[in-house]
Amino acid sequence: MSEPPSITQQEMRRRNLSLVMHAVARSGPLSRASVASRIGLTRAAVSTLVDELIGAGLLVELGPSRPGTVGRPGSALQLNEQGPAGLGAEIGVDHLAVCAVDLSGRVRARIVSEAANRNRAPGPVLDDLADLVRQVSAQAEDQGLRPVGLAVAVPGLVASGSSSVVRAPNLGWEGVDVAPSFPALPLTVDNEANYGALAELWLGGHDPAPRDLVHVSAEAGIGAAVVIDGRLLRGTHGFAGELGHVPVRPEGPPCACGGRGCLEQYAGEEALLRASGVDPAQAAARHPGPGRPIAYLAERAGDGDQQVRRALREAGKALGIALAGVVNLLDPQKVVLGGGLSPLLPWLLPALERELDRRVMDPGRVGQGAVTVSRLGADGPLLGAANSVVQACLDNPTWLRTRGTGAGASP
Amino acid sequence: MSEPPSITQQEMRRRNLSLVMHAVARSGPLSRASVASRIGLTRAAVSTLVDELIGAGLLVELGPSRPGTVGRPGSALQLNEQGPAGLGAEIGVDHLAVCAVDLSGRVRARIVSEAANRNRAPGPVLDDLADLVRQVSAQAEDQGLRPVGLAVAVPGLVASGSSSVVRAPNLGWEGVDVAPSFPALPLTVDNEANYGALAELWLGGHDPAPRDLVHVSAEAGIGAAVVIDGRLLRGTHGFAGELGHVPVRPEGPPCACGGRGCLEQYAGEEALLRASGVDPAQAAARHPGPGRPIAYLAERAGDGDQQVRRALREAGKALGIALAGVVNLLDPQKVVLGGGLSPLLPWLLPALERELDRRVMDPGRVGQGAVTVSRLGADGPLLGAANSVVQACLDNPTWLRTRGTGAGASP
Repeated sequence: MSEPPSITQQEMRRRNLSLVMHAVARSGPLSRASVASRIGLTRAAVSTLVDELIGAGLLVELGPSRPGTVGRPGSALQLNEQGPAGLGAEIGVDHLAVCAVDLSGRVRARIVSEAANRNRAPGPVLDDLADLVRQVSAQAEDQGLRPVGLAVAVPGLVASGSSSVVRAPNLGWEGVDVAPSFPALPLTVDNEANYGALAELWLGGHDPAPRDLVHVSAEAGIGAAVVIDGRLLRGTHGFAGELGHVPVRPEGPPCACGGRGCLEQYAGEEALLRASGVDPAQAAARHPGPGRPIAYLAERAGDGDQQVRRALREAGKALGIALAGVVNLLDPQKVVLGGGLSPLLPWLLPALERELDRRVMDPGRVGQGAVTVSRLGADGPLLGAANSVVQACLDNPTWLRTRGTGAGASP
Repeated sequence: MSEPPSITQQEMRRRNLSLVMHAVARSGPLSRASVASRIGLTRAAVSTLVDELIGAGLLVELGPSRPGTVGRPGSALQLNEQGPAGLGAEIGVDHLAVCAVDLSGRVRARIVSEAANRNRAPGPVLDDLADLVRQVSAQAEDQGLRPVGLAVAVPGLVASGSSSVVRAPNLGWEGVDVAPSFPALPLTVDNEANYGALAELWLGGHDPAPRDLVHVSAEAGIGAAVVIDGRLLRGTHGFAGELGHVPVRPEGPPCACGGRGCLEQYAGEEALLRASGVDPAQAAARHPGPGRPIAYLAERAGDGDQQVRRALREAGKALGIALAGVVNLLDPQKVVLGGGLSPLLPWLLPALERELDRRVMDPGRVGQGAVTVSRLGADGPLLGAANSVVQACLDNPTWLRTRGTGAGASP
């Protein structure tokens, strides 16, 4: 095993700056004394850290609190709402979306644009997205915010630590580097399922946030993200989370991945439409906007279409079988069904839960709320992307200066 | 999210003591200067740490090295081979085993005893094991070692952080607390698959050790352990790793877990014997000692028994299907097939690899050595258990004093 590096004073300082930021983010506005008692450092140490964070434009003082009390008044601290902003972007099969969030995670600007991206050349898609990023960035700057990073969510595999989309079958992309289209800001690119899971951790309304989580996402494909001990599992090559290619029926229909009977062959959008006897063009025509085939299927199921309902039951069963394997292997605290599936849940969920309950090693967990539905709707990946930039600021407040993007705000 | 605690000076000291221990464990004998350069601390800081570790009986000085050179001679440091020892114990279906290892992980005493433990009452089994522990402990003390902890590997589910076996179907145990039988030493109890995986990390001969690993183990059941970022995944309830209950054919034979078509129904020992047309009593009679049914099946397959070979091919296929799901979900660096399966691999492995290669998202990885066979044979769980005690000493050298078991050796 390689030896872990020793801790330097500089790392301790960075870690303590981060503790202050997280304390204020979680419970602010807070006085310096409250921050000190929450993170277990002395008031003097906290004051030094706070001064540095104010100087860097990350915290602001609200002015004296409780002015009637004796002694030097404590001044409440909160995150700077006119400080750094995170930009998130999402490339969907039928839409592009960009938003800006401030340090508190509040959405301050947002544009969603319909676009038929399936099998469109990557160049024009990325040009359109770059346009939207410029517009949202300008809107954020008009509100006094300073975009410090961009995170792009894509429906495909992204190689570990790179900005390259290895494969996005539902877009028809292979080996597309996103970076050249976004030269102005520090960029990260990741799978939409990963950002969806991070959004669930940060914004999902769980208190406390689960440490171990499997988040199932579905836009055109079926993906998942695995969170272990509060951190996203990326896998050795960055390919973790391919729930859609867990075998459900080993001799089932052939799958584009080369296998047979993968979950995607039962619960993926294309398979669902096929089993429902629905023509994709018809589904697209009936419901404009993102997520249209899903919305169309939900409408048909709601109208009592037996073929659609049967297809959804079968999809729920397949999801339950695949998730039973996942639960038996990982024993997660929660399985969260991502927002993209929400419209179909009334017909998917009963079969899913029945199958899962039958097959997991400690039955009863399903009844105890181990399976929940995301509150974030279809917005998870976009919000997760934007918030990942903000979280990077909270985790490492010295990052902005290191990156050289915070020159204007430095003390 | 809960805020991480701030780092205290005491924690830094503990971490730095651990860095010194790991450096010497990995590369010793080493001079103080070499330790300092490896871990990035000053020579003076390292000397203070080393003095403390020598005082605690964890390191020893070998005396002046290179006596011909000018200046104060450096004295080489190594782990104390007469210092603390870790005891490991294993409760198998057909054997009990106990061993003692020194700080370097070398086995210094060991007893294996045949025992028909299936459906035997837990009390007598634990009494027998306690006897063996006393004997091995005495043998270790005779060599100047000081047993400081005991780790027990069991073929079943152990509740997180407890010494209670929730369920061990192949022993017929439910809700058995192991602790009362071992009052003399700090005790940990864990699933054999977990200890097998840790042994693979520490002793498997990988260089560097993989950070992400799935270790498949098989005694009577099929289990697995998942290592992520160098640490064992335990799951929310401590139940992670139940590969044996990943569904392979959802409408397959009913399984004791309540599901159907679980991997264990194809690749578990009982299923293998059934599919091979072999009477378990006959297998047990032919091959005495631990692992006898496996040895018997290997013999029959080697003799060209077509029914046994077919059963093994089907088991390999089922393992490949289940592992394809695992690899697509987790993207691990390596899948290691544990030693218990070794005798059967010539007939299992081809089908397993073919199935896996067909179904994983990045085919080719199978050919690149992503699936390997453990070098540790059937000893993995026992060695992993004993070494877990030693690793706890290396990770936290102040542990011995905290526990109060090191009074005799303290300065």
